[in-house]
Amino acid sequence: MRKIEHIGIAVKDLAVSNKIFEKLFGAPAYKEEEVASEGVKTSFFMNGPNKIELLEATNAESPIAKFIEKKGEGIHHIAFDVEDIIQEIKRLKDEGFIVLNEVPKKGADNKLVAFLHPKSTNGVLIELCQEIA
Amino acid sequence: MRKIEHIGIAVKDLAVSNKIFEKLFGAPAYKEEEVASEGVKTSFFMNGPNKIELLEATNAESPIAKFIEKKGEGIHHIAFDVEDIIQEIKRLKDEGFIVLNEVPKKGADNKLVAFLHPKSTNGVLIELCQEIA
Repeated sequence: MRKIEHIGIAVKDLAVSNKIFEKLFGAPAYKEEEVASEGVKTSFFMNGPNKIELLEATNAESPIAKFIEKKGEGIHHIAFDVEDIIQEIKRLKDEGFIVLNEVPKKGADNKLVAFLHPKSTNGVLIELCQEIA
Repeated sequence: MRKIEHIGIAVKDLAVSNKIFEKLFGAPAYKEEEVASEGVKTSFFMNGPNKIELLEATNAESPIAKFIEKKGEGIHHIAFDVEDIIQEIKRLKDEGFIVLNEVPKKGADNKLVAFLHPKSTNGVLIELCQEIA
């Protein structure tokens, strides 16, 4: 794990929240992207070496819709940048972490991603992500 | 805001959680520190340009004790590194954010800190922090 790649924040209305985070950072989102397979619309803000990802659900079955229903808007996950996601999944499994995607899947922002179950990480949903070359 | 300085994670037992995050990062906490004024014991892990701060309550009145009682263990706040905290507090107030500490206070890890109310930031508790020279 080389750095925090991004923090994912669950929001009800991407357009409204884009304005809040634009004011916070003093700069607008640099891109928006829909990930149909996850049922989300996302926007990304740069912050030095890190990013903030806002996530709005596009249907009621989306993990983001369920998260907001249970906990309200707020921080959803932390994503760490990894050099070799296959090797990192293996290392973390061997350490006893519960890996939710043993085969990494395609995520937003041109990444291969895999999640660790919050049960094994102090209640924190952790995403590993590797840039697709 | 120049980068994510750290992510603060509320934990019940610092010793137990230190072991989890040591396995996650493949390296131990580089320091532990008690902040008596906030009722917390903390530990810090480096992750490239970023840090993870674990926080355990030292008394029942600690904000961390109340957070865990309400929401369980998990991500408590995001801290952004700022160059001039006084100026940033003014800028964010002018933008309509609710600043909880108009005069920054001494936080852990040799920092001046101020928090933004989650009501004004999509449910995310945001900390501004400036290294004390």
